[in-house]
Amino acid sequence: MFAQNPVFIPGPTNMPEVLRRAADMPTLDHRSALFGQILQPALAGVKKVLKSNAADVFIFPSTATGGWETALSNTLSPGDAVLAARHGMFSHRWIDMTRRHGLDVRVVEATWGEGLPADRFAEILSADKARTIKAVLVTHNETATGVKSDVAAVRQALDTAGHPALLLVDGVSSIASMDFRMDEWGVDVAVAGSQKGFMLPAGLAITAFSGKAMDATAQATLPRTYFDVRDMAKGYANDAYPYTPAVGLLNGLKLSTELLLAEGLETVFARHRRIADGIRAAVAAWGLELCAARPDLYSDTVSAIRTPEGFNATEIVTHAARKYDVAFGVGLGEVAGKVFRIGHLGSLTEVMALSGIAAAEMAMVDLGLRIELGSGVAAAQAVYRGAAAPGLRAAA
Amino acid sequence: MFAQNPVFIPGPTNMPEVLRRAADMPTLDHRSALFGQILQPALAGVKKVLKSNAADVFIFPSTATGGWETALSNTLSPGDAVLAARHGMFSHRWIDMTRRHGLDVRVVEATWGEGLPADRFAEILSADKARTIKAVLVTHNETATGVKSDVAAVRQALDTAGHPALLLVDGVSSIASMDFRMDEWGVDVAVAGSQKGFMLPAGLAITAFSGKAMDATAQATLPRTYFDVRDMAKGYANDAYPYTPAVGLLNGLKLSTELLLAEGLETVFARHRRIADGIRAAVAAWGLELCAARPDLYSDTVSAIRTPEGFNATEIVTHAARKYDVAFGVGLGEVAGKVFRIGHLGSLTEVMALSGIAAAEMAMVDLGLRIELGSGVAAAQAVYRGAAAPGLRAAA
Amino acid sequence: MFAQNPVFIPGPTNMPEVLRRAADMPTLDHRSALFGQILQPALAGVKKVLKSNAADVFIFPSTATGGWETALSNTLSPGDAVLAARHGMFSHRWIDMTRRHGLDVRVVEATWGEGLPADRFAEILSADKARTIKAVLVTHNETATGVKSDVAAVRQALDTAGHPALLLVDGVSSIASMDFRMDEWGVDVAVAGSQKGFMLPAGLAITAFSGKAMDATAQATLPRTYFDVRDMAKGYANDAYPYTPAVGLLNGLKLSTELLLAEGLETVFARHRRIADGIRAAVAAWGLELCAARPDLYSDTVSAIRTPEGFNATEIVTHAARKYDVAFGVGLGEVAGKVFRIGHLGSLTEVMALSGIAAAEMAMVDLGLRIELGSGVAAAQAVYRGAAAPGLRAAA
Amino acid sequence: MFAQNPVFIPGPTNMPEVLRRAADMPTLDHRSALFGQILQPALAGVKKVLKSNAADVFIFPSTATGGWETALSNTLSPGDAVLAARHGMFSHRWIDMTRRHGLDVRVVEATWGEGLPADRFAEILSADKARTIKAVLVTHNETATGVKSDVAAVRQALDTAGHPALLLVDGVSSIASMDFRMDEWGVDVAVAGSQKGFMLPAGLAITAFSGKAMDATAQATLPRTYFDVRDMAKGYANDAYPYTPAVGLLNGLKLSTELLLAEGLETVFARHRRIADGIRAAVAAWGLELCAARPDLYSDTVSAIRTPEGFNATEIVTHAARKYDVAFGVGLGEVAGKVFRIGHLGSLTEVMALSGIAAAEMAMVDLGLRIELGSGVAAAQAVYRGAAAPGLRAAA
Repeated sequence: MFAQNPVFIPGPTNMPEVLRRAADMPTLDHRSALFGQILQPALAGVKKVLKSNAADVFIFPSTATGGWETALSNTLSPGDAVLAARHGMFSHRWIDMTRRHGLDVRVVEATWGEGLPADRFAEILSADKARTIKAVLVTHNETATGVKSDVAAVRQALDTAGHPALLLVDGVSSIASMDFRMDEWGVDVAVAGSQKGFMLPAGLAITAFSGKAMDATAQATLPRTYFDVRDMAKGYANDAYPYTPAVGLLNGLKLSTELLLAEGLETVFARHRRIADGIRAAVAAWGLELCAARPDLYSDTVSAIRTPEGFNATEIVTHAARKYDVAFGVGLGEVAGKVFRIGHLGSLTEVMALSGIAAAEMAMVDLGLRIELGSGVAAAQAVYRGAAAPGLRAAA
Repeated sequence: MFAQNPVFIPGPTNMPEVLRRAADMPTLDHRSALFGQILQPALAGVKKVLKSNAADVFIFPSTATGGWETALSNTLSPGDAVLAARHGMFSHRWIDMTRRHGLDVRVVEATWGEGLPADRFAEILSADKARTIKAVLVTHNETATGVKSDVAAVRQALDTAGHPALLLVDGVSSIASMDFRMDEWGVDVAVAGSQKGFMLPAGLAITAFSGKAMDATAQATLPRTYFDVRDMAKGYANDAYPYTPAVGLLNGLKLSTELLLAEGLETVFARHRRIADGIRAAVAAWGLELCAARPDLYSDTVSAIRTPEGFNATEIVTHAARKYDVAFGVGLGEVAGKVFRIGHLGSLTEVMALSGIAAAEMAMVDLGLRIELGSGVAAAQAVYRGAAAPGLRAAA
Repeated sequence: MFAQNPVFIPGPTNMPEVLRRAADMPTLDHRSALFGQILQPALAGVKKVLKSNAADVFIFPSTATGGWETALSNTLSPGDAVLAARHGMFSHRWIDMTRRHGLDVRVVEATWGEGLPADRFAEILSADKARTIKAVLVTHNETATGVKSDVAAVRQALDTAGHPALLLVDGVSSIASMDFRMDEWGVDVAVAGSQKGFMLPAGLAITAFSGKAMDATAQATLPRTYFDVRDMAKGYANDAYPYTPAVGLLNGLKLSTELLLAEGLETVFARHRRIADGIRAAVAAWGLELCAARPDLYSDTVSAIRTPEGFNATEIVTHAARKYDVAFGVGLGEVAGKVFRIGHLGSLTEVMALSGIAAAEMAMVDLGLRIELGSGVAAAQAVYRGAAAPGLRAAA
Repeated sequence: MFAQNPVFIPGPTNMPEVLRRAADMPTLDHRSALFGQILQPALAGVKKVLKSNAADVFIFPSTATGGWETALSNTLSPGDAVLAARHGMFSHRWIDMTRRHGLDVRVVEATWGEGLPADRFAEILSADKARTIKAVLVTHNETATGVKSDVAAVRQALDTAGHPALLLVDGVSSIASMDFRMDEWGVDVAVAGSQKGFMLPAGLAITAFSGKAMDATAQATLPRTYFDVRDMAKGYANDAYPYTPAVGLLNGLKLSTELLLAEGLETVFARHRRIADGIRAAVAAWGLELCAARPDLYSDTVSAIRTPEGFNATEIVTHAARKYDVAFGVGLGEVAGKVFRIGHLGSLTEVMALSGIAAAEMAMVDLGLRIELGSGVAAAQAVYRGAAAPGLRAAA
């Protein structure tokens, strides 16, 4: 039941033992004063990780999908128009959610492997003279394709058009591992989850609302109770929750943000870039290509790797799990069978990354791909030799 | 940070270490075959605990409030009429939720301390010839007042009236500690939470749908995504989840149901009754009264104890926490300041219960109540001497 | 397998979760620099707990019996005379050990229930003009009888006689729970164990040597390797161990001393006295007597309680374990069947103590003793009401 | 404080979480019946791992050095002659212990990197017509040099000479990872430790005595109390211990033997051989040599790797720890600075081994050794591709 090898799925991530222990608390009376000593630092820590001074942070016992629902149902009303791009499985799913909640979603289709088409958004927003679009949805890091999008460019598009639409950003697989600037980018609602950059078990949807988004909650008429941020806000003001909080996970989140901030956000981001650079060097050494179309789109938390025409990439994942007890991610949706994914977010060292690269190599060779054993490892080693640092240990 | 004394709040409960460990798992690839080996036994175990052969169980990463929302949003449409009684804080909150979701709720007001007025429900249902009422809401165990309601009587009322309304039951603080008969009582949706009778951390809404309720999900038009049981059903069929599952909590739930079923449900229920009988004997020895109006309403999971006129019952809770590091529950809503609550559900032994009784005694004497030290303890000891058993240890 | 009730054996004690976690470490390279960061604070912390500025602390992966062997084999040579009193099972066993190691032990027999007869020691030491006695053995707290001895009086006897014998003190069940003054009392070797006042699992013999004792190690010719403090001293000077250390337990010991010193030693001792006073009040209320002959002999860590003539006290222990899942200590040696013991050292709150008293009451009544239910609890409550404090939580 | 990378020291080893949890138990009354349910299966399990039907197993709360002392002090008397070979640091230390305990040790010096010279032992034993040699000491696996010795050949030498000397074998770093046949080889005392093949924390000396060795305990006059197997035997007969047992570690040992036997001893040994073969393939690919002189001497639990003349091998260990947070073992004694060691015993997968090889490569290249990055990894991958299996997961 208890694995020894690291996992290389793009979340939930490997968890440092210190965070697992923080999350595994004995029962504490959540109506006692002790609870505020967990809740408030967790909220404040998240705000710092988001580089925000102004946002209101709300944390729900749910997964990030609940965070999406929080973003929509608290700011929008039935029939409202929203703008979104489909360029991967997670942007696809958020679009699907808008439909289920009776929103009028305007979808820009984009190639999977490309980022969000900010210029196309700019055109649409400029053309929307009637300001019917109430919100723009951005998937900051498409976990399905290993592609990051340019949130600042979307903000630019909004500003250029003088458009008042809210900017709702899914940062689930980027926040706390890649740079995210809530205030600078003018993000109105940010959505994250505990099981990615925060290195915790799944179970918390972490959201942050700008002042403008908070204003919107008063007008929004989509039905909501569980995900209603107004109840949360009322509770937080009294160090309380509108229902039973997941105290252990909140305690873990408090410590997670403390560790991240002690290490330094820029150091954390650089660490993820360095590990990702090693993975990407390995991919190049293998003679393979990333799903992400261009270097400026490369995600530092997950790499989707294209396998040759006619090869079922999913077999790599199945085989590596079965024979080497190593978990990679399969391709989803449009790229199912065409890519496999190496997750490299959260708690990972260079040395752990090398074991994942080595396992992928063996699996690919086993399955007949013309990959040279050790080639990807050597390429990554060259990257890591230049830069390796003891990582989290220093901070812990 | 780590308490040594048991807690006596009515949930989250004391957690057996074996369950905490089951819930605190290293990361497992939830898309691997291992996940099904956790999910399916957890679902099957819950079904047995609910005494159901037919129900579909759905488990959400959320708290039980999310379970209420699941029950409503999957079976009802905007404007649907529902029937409910308000006789405590939790029935009150569920009623509030129906309003937020645009339902037409018919509220029967009842005294706090009384159970649901089944005879009044019978009248209303009989009178509803147009069958406008689509669902009847029942709070099986009012955690605020320590009162249980007669679900079978509501079923009887529905059947007598030949009324097709769905029977939605909140069993959050009863299920797995008190008898609950989903099939026999014709419950259409049952709602439970991980942090009560299942003795786990908060974080799972556990719901079960009858076939009739499942049929209703196809017609229901309340917006839903996160809590949509249709996505869950599709996922479960493939040992998968529509989003990232809380694998650790599911693993804990699997073990929890195994422990409960190994001990035997009737034995578990008898254990809770016995511990509750001891608490009630103590209350009588103190010369105090329960909030619950009559013995047939007594909850076996929580006792709300009335304090004398003019005395602020909340002080007992504050004082016991501060001076003795023991957590009791305060009175809520209409009975705020009038009662304090001793939770006795989940993982508790007679010996632990005695320490709670002893702490309550000291706190009450400290605050000037005319209680004899040791009196409640002696009364409970008399009960426990007759019946004490090693409890969970035997099962573990 | 996992108990819920506190244990009331006189060690191993209940363990705070925070200490269990500190002791349960992943593998750390004990030859790396990190090890010194655990070892040195642990050594320094123990020194402070012993109230010593001068002692050399040595910690062996063994139990306290190994600490006794450490004390003897490092300071004495075959045939050396030692002076000891037998007044309980643990003083008896230490005497037995001296014989096995070829020492010439002079035993003063004393009543079980009395302390060490310091005046008799004074006479013998004064009479020993030839200074043949090389060491005096003192059992500071006889765990078998709940009796503490006056170490200062033995020091006084040595000084009055101008006798150079070493003063070896077994403080296994006193140190870290009761006052122990290594320097002030002129203790030459002190012996403690991890599983008592330090609230850790069994597995560490904790010893401290005065300068005089260290000098003796050079002359002592009793064979020793595993327990040789000279190897330890050499290792410690390089942050190393002569063999594989129990790193986790040392890490636990480091934290244990930090918690004890943060709470304040006098506060810790007062806490144990207060809890013991409650237990003793209960014993009086039951109409029973302690094995300890007089109040100045009362141990604050364990109470041995005499049961009426003709009653087998061991039955209480057996019955309480079987029926109530509560562990007490049986009588040992001369007092087997005549006493049962309540351990109240280590990590215990007043509220936990009350549950032990309540369980003992039920067991005694079950077995036909004329004890009034609740009587001991009420007596202890009266003590605890006056003094209860949040205990370790404040320090943690 | 909490490392993420596996350790590659030759013990303590990486520990499966399931064993850490088994060892981290809440306090259990070791005088209750529950203790026997831990102790007896642990003893029986060890016996099976040793492939013995007849041995008496004794487990001491100490490290394996205490096991050496147990072997000597229970079977020998002051002045007894013993035969031993010095061919590494651990055989050296055991020889040193014999001297400290007043034994007359006859030392055969052998090259470090060679095994025990069984033919030389044969000559000496044949020549010892007076049977003055009372015991022959064998270090089955020299952890310092990565060399295994031929225990069966020593038994053969004894039998050929018709010599009655006891055969005492240090199997600390072999037992439970490499084949060990107590009965077939006629081993009289076997010594192991919890922190190697049993994958537990350090803290248990695990010994086994043949009937002949048990007979010797009655005659042996070396002083002993803590390590006296007669007290242990007496205790075990009553499910008890002569002093406080390390209950958690014993519980861990029980589970460890269950896991090992469920996997199958031959499967366990093959797994260690396979992982070792990969390491050795890497060493060859690097153009380096093992300290072990010949393939039949190769240890399957630790590889000592010679670095080129003029290079300080210890730097690899220091550098890898500092830069890559990976722990290897330094050379000890005669081979200090000449070798570094990769431990590959206990709980290790092929994928983890590859990360160690990759880290060693980077460290060596960083330090200027002419090693090709990826070369060792590729060689090991070739081995592991042929044979990889899911390892412990299957058993757990």
